[in-house]
Amino acid sequence: MAMNTFTNTIKNDLARTELFSPLTMSSATTFLWNSKMVAQINCRGYMTSQFMQPEPSKYSYAPNLEAKTFIQPEQPYYADHPGRFFYIKNEETGEMFSAPYEPMRVELDSFCFSAGTSDVKWIINKWGIEFTITLSLTKDLVVELWSVEVVNGNSKALSVSIYPCFSIGYMSWMSQSADFNAELSGIVATSVTPYQKVEDYFKNQELKDLTYMVADQVPDSWCCNLLTFRGEGGMHNPSMLQETRLENKPACYETPVGVQQFKQHLLPNEKQNLNIIFGPAKNVEEIKTLKAKLLAKPEQFKDVRQDYSDYINKGKGTLSITSPDADFDHYVNHWLPRQVFYHGDVNRLSTDPQTRNFLQDAMGMIYIAPAVTRERLLLALSQQKRSGAMPDGILLTDEAELKYINQVPHTDHCVWLSICLQAYLDETGDSSILSEQVAFEATPDAEPETASVKVHLDRAMQWLLSATDARGLSYIEQGDWCDPMNMVGYKGKGVSAWLSLASSYAISCWNQVCETYYLSSELTNAELSESKKTIAEFASAADTLNLQVNKHCWNGDWFARGITDDGNVFGTKTDVEGRIFLNPQSWAMLSNAASDSQYKLMNNQIFSQLATPYGVTMLAPSFTQMREDIGRVTQKSAGVSENGSVYNHAAMFYGFALYTKGQNDLAFDVLKRMLPSQQNADAQGQLPVFVPNYYRGAYYQHPHHAGRSSHLFNTGTVAWYFRSVVEGLCGLKGCGNDLLIQPQLPSHWPTLKVQREFRGASIELNVIKSDKIKDTVVTINGEVSAQHKICDVQAGQTYKVEVLLPLEK
Amino acid sequence: MAMNTFTNTIKNDLARTELFSPLTMSSATTFLWNSKMVAQINCRGYMTSQFMQPEPSKYSYAPNLEAKTFIQPEQPYYADHPGRFFYIKNEETGEMFSAPYEPMRVELDSFCFSAGTSDVKWIINKWGIEFTITLSLTKDLVVELWSVEVVNGNSKALSVSIYPCFSIGYMSWMSQSADFNAELSGIVATSVTPYQKVEDYFKNQELKDLTYMVADQVPDSWCCNLLTFRGEGGMHNPSMLQETRLENKPACYETPVGVQQFKQHLLPNEKQNLNIIFGPAKNVEEIKTLKAKLLAKPEQFKDVRQDYSDYINKGKGTLSITSPDADFDHYVNHWLPRQVFYHGDVNRLSTDPQTRNFLQDAMGMIYIAPAVTRERLLLALSQQKRSGAMPDGILLTDEAELKYINQVPHTDHCVWLSICLQAYLDETGDSSILSEQVAFEATPDAEPETASVKVHLDRAMQWLLSATDARGLSYIEQGDWCDPMNMVGYKGKGVSAWLSLASSYAISCWNQVCETYYLSSELTNAELSESKKTIAEFASAADTLNLQVNKHCWNGDWFARGITDDGNVFGTKTDVEGRIFLNPQSWAMLSNAASDSQYKLMNNQIFSQLATPYGVTMLAPSFTQMREDIGRVTQKSAGVSENGSVYNHAAMFYGFALYTKGQNDLAFDVLKRMLPSQQNADAQGQLPVFVPNYYRGAYYQHPHHAGRSSHLFNTGTVAWYFRSVVEGLCGLKGCGNDLLIQPQLPSHWPTLKVQREFRGASIELNVIKSDKIKDTVVTINGEVSAQHKICDVQAGQTYKVEVLLPLEK
Repeated sequence: MAMNTFTNTIKNDLARTELFSPLTMSSATTFLWNSKMVAQINCRGYMTSQFMQPEPSKYSYAPNLEAKTFIQPEQPYYADHPGRFFYIKNEETGEMFSAPYEPMRVELDSFCFSAGTSDVKWIINKWGIEFTITLSLTKDLVVELWSVEVVNGNSKALSVSIYPCFSIGYMSWMSQSADFNAELSGIVATSVTPYQKVEDYFKNQELKDLTYMVADQVPDSWCCNLLTFRGEGGMHNPSMLQETRLENKPACYETPVGVQQFKQHLLPNEKQNLNIIFGPAKNVEEIKTLKAKLLAKPEQFKDVRQDYSDYINKGKGTLSITSPDADFDHYVNHWLPRQVFYHGDVNRLSTDPQTRNFLQDAMGMIYIAPAVTRERLLLALSQQKRSGAMPDGILLTDEAELKYINQVPHTDHCVWLSICLQAYLDETGDSSILSEQVAFEATPDAEPETASVKVHLDRAMQWLLSATDARGLSYIEQGDWCDPMNMVGYKGKGVSAWLSLASSYAISCWNQVCETYYLSSELTNAELSESKKTIAEFASAADTLNLQVNKHCWNGDWFARGITDDGNVFGTKTDVEGRIFLNPQSWAMLSNAASDSQYKLMNNQIFSQLATPYGVTMLAPSFTQMREDIGRVTQKSAGVSENGSVYNHAAMFYGFALYTKGQNDLAFDVLKRMLPSQQNADAQGQLPVFVPNYYRGAYYQHPHHAGRSSHLFNTGTVAWYFRSVVEGLCGLKGCGNDLLIQPQLPSHWPTLKVQREFRGASIELNVIKSDKIKDTVVTINGEVSAQHKICDVQAGQTYKVEVLLPLEK
Repeated sequence: MAMNTFTNTIKNDLARTELFSPLTMSSATTFLWNSKMVAQINCRGYMTSQFMQPEPSKYSYAPNLEAKTFIQPEQPYYADHPGRFFYIKNEETGEMFSAPYEPMRVELDSFCFSAGTSDVKWIINKWGIEFTITLSLTKDLVVELWSVEVVNGNSKALSVSIYPCFSIGYMSWMSQSADFNAELSGIVATSVTPYQKVEDYFKNQELKDLTYMVADQVPDSWCCNLLTFRGEGGMHNPSMLQETRLENKPACYETPVGVQQFKQHLLPNEKQNLNIIFGPAKNVEEIKTLKAKLLAKPEQFKDVRQDYSDYINKGKGTLSITSPDADFDHYVNHWLPRQVFYHGDVNRLSTDPQTRNFLQDAMGMIYIAPAVTRERLLLALSQQKRSGAMPDGILLTDEAELKYINQVPHTDHCVWLSICLQAYLDETGDSSILSEQVAFEATPDAEPETASVKVHLDRAMQWLLSATDARGLSYIEQGDWCDPMNMVGYKGKGVSAWLSLASSYAISCWNQVCETYYLSSELTNAELSESKKTIAEFASAADTLNLQVNKHCWNGDWFARGITDDGNVFGTKTDVEGRIFLNPQSWAMLSNAASDSQYKLMNNQIFSQLATPYGVTMLAPSFTQMREDIGRVTQKSAGVSENGSVYNHAAMFYGFALYTKGQNDLAFDVLKRMLPSQQNADAQGQLPVFVPNYYRGAYYQHPHHAGRSSHLFNTGTVAWYFRSVVEGLCGLKGCGNDLLIQPQLPSHWPTLKVQREFRGASIELNVIKSDKIKDTVVTINGEVSAQHKICDVQAGQTYKVEVLLPLEK
């Protein structure tokens, strides 16, 4: 693997990550989204796109009737995988290739897959011509905007035919056809979403069952019929391209495709451009409107692209760092806030996000748009049950219903409330949220009940304490944070050591919130005394949780993962598989269940059993056979997903906990390893434009596969990543009215510069290591701060903060 | 299209149909089945296979996660479609091709796709070598038996490598892997059927989640990893085949494939053979057992193949004809009974066959195994409701449930009871069935009720009469025979003209049954008088149905299809689309609702509006837009399936009705056009090894697509086809204790010879047209029969029947 497989750059003030060969990382992708759609774009031209109506739907389908399911990890590409391809024919020589690379796979003179924050470009050279293909979206429509710019770099004129070939695929067994619509001057495929029950006819009324592909130029010829287009030649050498013109062939209950021919005669140095829109529609009128809006004049495309870029840039975040590690900075300053924004702004394009995801994704938004965090917290609480329990998913629309995994009872959702709320309050200081009145979930047999956020949270914590067994350990039912750990407690007895620790931590967070943001408000004496009593009771309960986990789940070197329905402690030394789990260790650090000596013992075991070059795995050894007292996680492929991958969400908990323990080097190592890197490019196969939900683990069981990315960009990791950078690495954490200044640089970093917005103030932090001092010196606007904090931060102010760290630290 | 595109032959007493090019009919398929599996095999090597556990499952999957659905019509093949391929490398020249044809598509010296009744063969010549590839099944296991026989026809020795490459595909997102199992000396892919709910874990316990591919020889090398095997070359030129050996590469949470290399050094004229088994298993032990049973000695393969052939030959039927039309004879004598047997023996491999299919498929079995018909009738009646209504599907196992279309209420199911019972009684004379006691469907809130079949049928007919509106026309609810005609009556008011006529016909059939097989039994006078009264009442009710349809649905030239919820008569002259439907005309002929003059008017319209070169369409013009008062049928692609295709089931009703009207030429034309023919090969794309459920219609709307076969071999057509041949064309219909002799030859046939088993007797019919007579002369064993029937047929006897028909007839 050459070290310049990919490059991080800044162009026009925007981040780009560029890959220079279609061969080295053939599965590399990036993604684009808006509130209505998401598209994952592979460097070679394959694409997976879906849009919300309001449930996820397709407009570019597989060649067969696919199951409706979530996006699969390590999605396998195959010859007929949906994609957007551009066959290019040299009209003088008859030579052909396809851009970006599929399906012809002809060698190019140069190749660049350039992932931008709001577009994707390919810059390809062949025959002395430069082809620049650009994909972007709009900020609120379901349409792909494609441009092909062609520049003839030869000293003589050249004629080429460009054949954009966009997969439409198998739309429906009920009805599917496609034809060229002369009025639109574009291809329109029509279908009827398959159904059998009459009630579904009415439900389906509003579905966008058409797929259109319209250019800003009249094509020289076209074909909508996949089988005929492909012919005996196949997609890698379509028969119809052997002829001068396409056959203008419709599809009539046949698999549609969108292919159009555009002949371009290029003088020396001449530049020509072709714009295309592609997407779903309800009817032809809608397409006409879109065409008028997008393709009538060249500047329209430019304008909507700018609008889209402006939308994406709303997610830029409030942090910028300059460290000795430019790749790390690139991710933290650009791709990280973008990924956090994606999660927080559109809720992973689900109508029933899992409660824990919804809350953690909202947590990430404190650094981007904290008003969104507030709104999401209140929405979640409005679906809380009076018992304090949280539902498995948060319904975002009136029609939404709990689907798939949200129909399986999990017991951890309350935990994330106080954690998310604490982060929100530390960032914003907005203590008014605690007195905000929110209704509990309506039930048919009871009067509506409304209470303050404070009361909601108290009940949530009480629910966590009530959902425990005689030992005081938390029931796991059919899963906690780990969805497929579904048979530890399905008989009603099994408990989760992790959840017990997480409950302890969540309660501590809630106590800190109350102490910092509630007690200080204007309470009556009676309220104050009542609140302090509650805090003391909660503190005692959290201690008890820690004690009980220690009593029942500490195996001498680490914490077990839980106790099954039948009373078997698992995740311990006696287990051949699933011997050690990461989460209980990380959260014992967070909850203070682990003493310093326990921490050292645990960490030794994490190093020896869980650490891999690609990060820390979630458990080891990976299960290779079903354990009926643990569940579905043990049936997953070894090293994949929850069964012992480097599951970044879990690894990130560990990294966050390490910062709380002052383990700066170890913590930074977690952050750093999470990013796809040049040296791991072969193994990971991913560009550092997002953190994937996992890298393959099972390092000792399947060494050749370890490190491989899932290529899934939905992950609870990123909110915690951002938080760890801000609060841990940069050490700029809010607390009450103040901003603490406690940077935690890895030992190999001599300096760090940070620009951060905080409650309307501008913080300019400059950290320098010095061998001239023994203790940290913090200077704020030129004055030494003994407390290492900016007290009573004022909006509108700029605070220049200088931190001198002793070299040893 | 050359006239020798395909050939019907007999080899070793068994029928074969052979295709001599992979290019002329690239979608041509045949199918094999047993009680546990079914496989549709495309001439170029693609394959769609499923097995029952007990619901349909896969062991050779698509490259992505497919929806679980019925087999789609006109199934589109794509590059990565599941198949069984054999790459062949000439070890001397390095040249390669793939057999049968996909995925390399290299020109062959000769090609033969030979569909047999119990096997499929390809005979391919290349480089002077003959490759014979054979696929068969076993009679009761889920395993494909593959053989590759190689004969070196060269005068010098030659070395080849044979690489069988069997698709395994995307098995599961939970877990999928594959490896070579040294003990088995074969490839085993393992997976876990995806699920999320703990109850499904227990349901899935018995699933066969492994796929195996084991040969009777140790391979020289192997690969189970699709992506690595394919490499940058693609399936049409796999990278791994460029090397001398395969990489022995497993799949580890990667898409599996089964590829093995077998090097063969062939002396001049030497023959070598390779046997492979491929299928699903629950565990490795099961595969070991299979290997021991099938691959331990060469004769085992031969024996199980013979057993399978014996099983298929149980469906040979009891009829053999020799007519002037050899192709017609070939289908009728071989492929027709086979297709009827498939339907009747394994119920289309469904656990909840639609009631109407279940009964009509059972009807076909009267000519093959009438005991099965009897058993199926009784099973169906055991699920009848006390009201007389029949459920939408018949549950065949305890776990089965009504799925898909069976959750939509249809009103025609009772109709098929008396029709099927009449056919059964006419064929067997088994009047004992009428007094068989059968329980009605159990309901939680009532005592069990048992009654005779006679009573069950009475109630069914009464239910049909009760499910009518004030006009006396039959409610359609959400469909009758036409499943997707689901919005004519979904509001509770719409009626079906077809169902009214079908009810009339069904009641007449029932009356005939009672008169012929019930009144003659030993009844008391009271019973006799009661029965006669019922018969008279039913006869009157049937007349009334006919009258009411005439009154409300005759438009002057044909019968309308029904009246919608809102009172609109549809399928009439004023309709621009769906102007005329075939079924009401055919069944008006059967029910005698149509007078002779009406029949002539109707038939003129059928000729001018519905007839096409590929048969009679079900309606015309096909709908091109939704009619909300008709329903889903109008949303299907024009000319496809129920929306105006040559839907053979409906066409067959028409053919059957034509025989009852003595329209011998028209009736035969229906039978004949239903068979894929040489001259229609381009349009139909199908071999005459089965009658498909439809050929595309919309002849005037989409002339280029008309005639295209659905390639679906599940169709209610074939039972009626058999019945039309026996009762109509051959005119050998049972009635009471007698066999009627009334052959109905098309005018261009001078002769017909028939060999038929009937109630244990052997009938040898010889029909000759003669210009020497004016009226038909029937001779039975040398004696003239004025009644044109064999009276009181005796089992064990042989009846030589000669029929002289006047030439004009």
